[in-house]
Amino acid sequence: MNRKTALFLIHGWLMATTLFAQNGVLVFQSDFGLKDGAVSAMKGVAMGVSPNLKIFDLTHEIPAYNIWEAAYRLLQTAPYYPKGTVFVSVCDPGVGTDRKSVVLLTQSGHYVVTPDNGTLTLIAEKMGIREVREIDEAVNCLRNSDESYTFHGRDVYAYTGARLAARAITFVQVGRKLPPEVKKIPYQQPVLEKGILKGTIPVLDVQYGNVWSNIPKPLVTKLGVKTGAKVQVRIYSKTEKVFDDRVALVNTFGESNEGENVAYFNSLLNFSVAVNMGNFAEKYKVSSGPDWRIEVEK
Amino acid sequence: MNRKTALFLIHGWLMATTLFAQNGVLVFQSDFGLKDGAVSAMKGVAMGVSPNLKIFDLTHEIPAYNIWEAAYRLLQTAPYYPKGTVFVSVCDPGVGTDRKSVVLLTQSGHYVVTPDNGTLTLIAEKMGIREVREIDEAVNCLRNSDESYTFHGRDVYAYTGARLAARAITFVQVGRKLPPEVKKIPYQQPVLEKGILKGTIPVLDVQYGNVWSNIPKPLVTKLGVKTGAKVQVRIYSKTEKVFDDRVALVNTFGESNEGENVAYFNSLLNFSVAVNMGNFAEKYKVSSGPDWRIEVEK
Amino acid sequence: MNRKTALFLIHGWLMATTLFAQNGVLVFQSDFGLKDGAVSAMKGVAMGVSPNLKIFDLTHEIPAYNIWEAAYRLLQTAPYYPKGTVFVSVCDPGVGTDRKSVVLLTQSGHYVVTPDNGTLTLIAEKMGIREVREIDEAVNCLRNSDESYTFHGRDVYAYTGARLAARAITFVQVGRKLPPEVKKIPYQQPVLEKGILKGTIPVLDVQYGNVWSNIPKPLVTKLGVKTGAKVQVRIYSKTEKVFDDRVALVNTFGESNEGENVAYFNSLLNFSVAVNMGNFAEKYKVSSGPDWRIEVEK
Repeated sequence: MNRKTALFLIHGWLMATTLFAQNGVLVFQSDFGLKDGAVSAMKGVAMGVSPNLKIFDLTHEIPAYNIWEAAYRLLQTAPYYPKGTVFVSVCDPGVGTDRKSVVLLTQSGHYVVTPDNGTLTLIAEKMGIREVREIDEAVNCLRNSDESYTFHGRDVYAYTGARLAARAITFVQVGRKLPPEVKKIPYQQPVLEKGILKGTIPVLDVQYGNVWSNIPKPLVTKLGVKTGAKVQVRIYSKTEKVFDDRVALVNTFGESNEGENVAYFNSLLNFSVAVNMGNFAEKYKVSSGPDWRIEVEK
Repeated sequence: MNRKTALFLIHGWLMATTLFAQNGVLVFQSDFGLKDGAVSAMKGVAMGVSPNLKIFDLTHEIPAYNIWEAAYRLLQTAPYYPKGTVFVSVCDPGVGTDRKSVVLLTQSGHYVVTPDNGTLTLIAEKMGIREVREIDEAVNCLRNSDESYTFHGRDVYAYTGARLAARAITFVQVGRKLPPEVKKIPYQQPVLEKGILKGTIPVLDVQYGNVWSNIPKPLVTKLGVKTGAKVQVRIYSKTEKVFDDRVALVNTFGESNEGENVAYFNSLLNFSVAVNMGNFAEKYKVSSGPDWRIEVEK
Repeated sequence: MNRKTALFLIHGWLMATTLFAQNGVLVFQSDFGLKDGAVSAMKGVAMGVSPNLKIFDLTHEIPAYNIWEAAYRLLQTAPYYPKGTVFVSVCDPGVGTDRKSVVLLTQSGHYVVTPDNGTLTLIAEKMGIREVREIDEAVNCLRNSDESYTFHGRDVYAYTGARLAARAITFVQVGRKLPPEVKKIPYQQPVLEKGILKGTIPVLDVQYGNVWSNIPKPLVTKLGVKTGAKVQVRIYSKTEKVFDDRVALVNTFGESNEGENVAYFNSLLNFSVAVNMGNFAEKYKVSSGPDWRIEVEK
């Protein structure tokens, strides 16, 4: 190896250890709910790995088996955590089937430990894939749990995530490198076609019943709509139209009256609709997921 | 400046840095619920400010837009955290209107970061106002979020609370000093008038359905009622009477039978009523807030 | 004291301080829910004891007054936390009656602070009793709270648990040593009688509606049943039979079709039944507790 190569490798190693080094922050997401001890057992395993980990929850209220929503919550949250944070997401309807257990390192330097079942759809798209590795369960599995057939969440995902976050293992020690791709759930990408904005309703703002789209602000600007103006909003469940009306686009809810329908940009700066001080989703029976589409026209 | 003034100022500074110094403990409250990523994103922002913060939740199940309940939960909890703890409370139906974003430093040395919309009503009254400052959003706002119109919770309140708790900014750096007052929600203060105790039902003990009043134990003692005796309890929703019966005042639920109505002093030492092993609020359709009043008579 | 005795005592002391030393990890469980400030106040008290404590939740969604479920959640979770962890469990329908407030040290080196009302039934049985001490409330009670009759959770249990976890007190300082026994709730122990496995349904896997039994895998093996085979499953509420059908025993849900009834071993390696991608408990109206029994036959 000549000097140039050596310097290049050292540079790469320094980049990796500074840009992508795990920071001891571990964030859990699941569809387990908080009524039993499953989530707490995962944290116990993590404390057994290292008492210095800083452990947080994303949410454990993902509707059972709803991979799409798990994907969306990751995207909504991960960018706000510092680089080097390790996320463990367990929404795994296919446990025991041939879906792979993987760790994704994003271009932004975040790690996600998860079954590769579509959970990574959005985060891979928006935060970029730097490297994907398959968890080698022969070594990355909680000892004395070899008889347990079903709780991968605790024995593989939480254990591997905790060891990675605590630097008990390096990213390379997770397992073999896979091609830089993940399983994707198909959905309507945001587009502007013939004066019509088209997109998906990825999730509801459940607490308030607001309806969020995946249509970003710049695309709305491109349509030529400014705040204060009204737009035509249409919402479809597959092919059935469930909402079709004109709605004012506001900067803040304070610009509208109580009970009025409003359009606004949510905290992700995506086009959204709400009833001021009310529940849009409930009022118009709107739900979310890849089957729900939205159109916006001048 | 003479020596006396200098000593006085130094004394004041020492008082401030010891009595009111932030302690790295950061407590979040909101009406966001835990089903999406909003609360977790706020914690991610805080971790980005300092990985040494100790982060806790008060509750995120404040009913949407219920400022009164946010006010009450703060009062119920804050006194049990050590001095220097920073609370961030985001229940903000008027986001985008002209309510101010403030930080209150209480006489007891606790900080509360919140929209000044009534949330501080009870904590200002009971824990005292030492100083109020308006958040200068020009400097105390998460970078790269300047386009976001709606998520003050994450970009202003969580960010400012985290920086204050981590001592990345001093209290003075929050922004300009305001007059020592906060916006207050009017309600029935506890009084003893002509042998009748009058008060409000500030909140329910939701898990058990017990009904809490704001009438403190000393006032009940002043009425001349001792545990073991029966009292007449009347409950009103605005002007409508929804409960009117004699109830025994007990030290502990163990002194009464299952299914019996009892009066007792809750953990805040306020007069409360319950059904032993049952749900008083559900049984008698009692709710809470400034519109709900209670009267107690011998 | 001769040299042998001294060495023995020193050995014992070393054993105790290494094997059973508190590790600063404090885990809370209650039936308080998360809608009010009760749980947060307990954590505030703990932070006041020591800012270095690492605080976690087991669950606070134990159904009100359901001691049996509190007992089960402890057993489900505690073994996954490192030795020296202190659990505080507050499900206390008999607050104010003569139930004792105790701390159990298990053979495995875990501490549980709780009213001795049956909460320790399962953990004592499975993790073993090393020593039980009664909390001396004269010294182990939060100061300035002497007037509070009702919130033992915060003033006695959280405070004592925090002080024990932070080593502000030793286990001996908790209070006087009691006989090594705890109050037990009677239930059907798992047995194999005349070719029939008998057990209890201790809890449901609430999030998915799966039904868990207390029948361990080795007993199923003893019955001569292997995965892939079908077994007869009968479920009783007291004496009433609510389910009676043949069900296939699988290694993973992936081996069955959507909507199919399956039997499997849960994360505790106990015999369990589920509807693949469905809710068994809801479908067959099955609940849990000491009154619910299950039988398995070839």
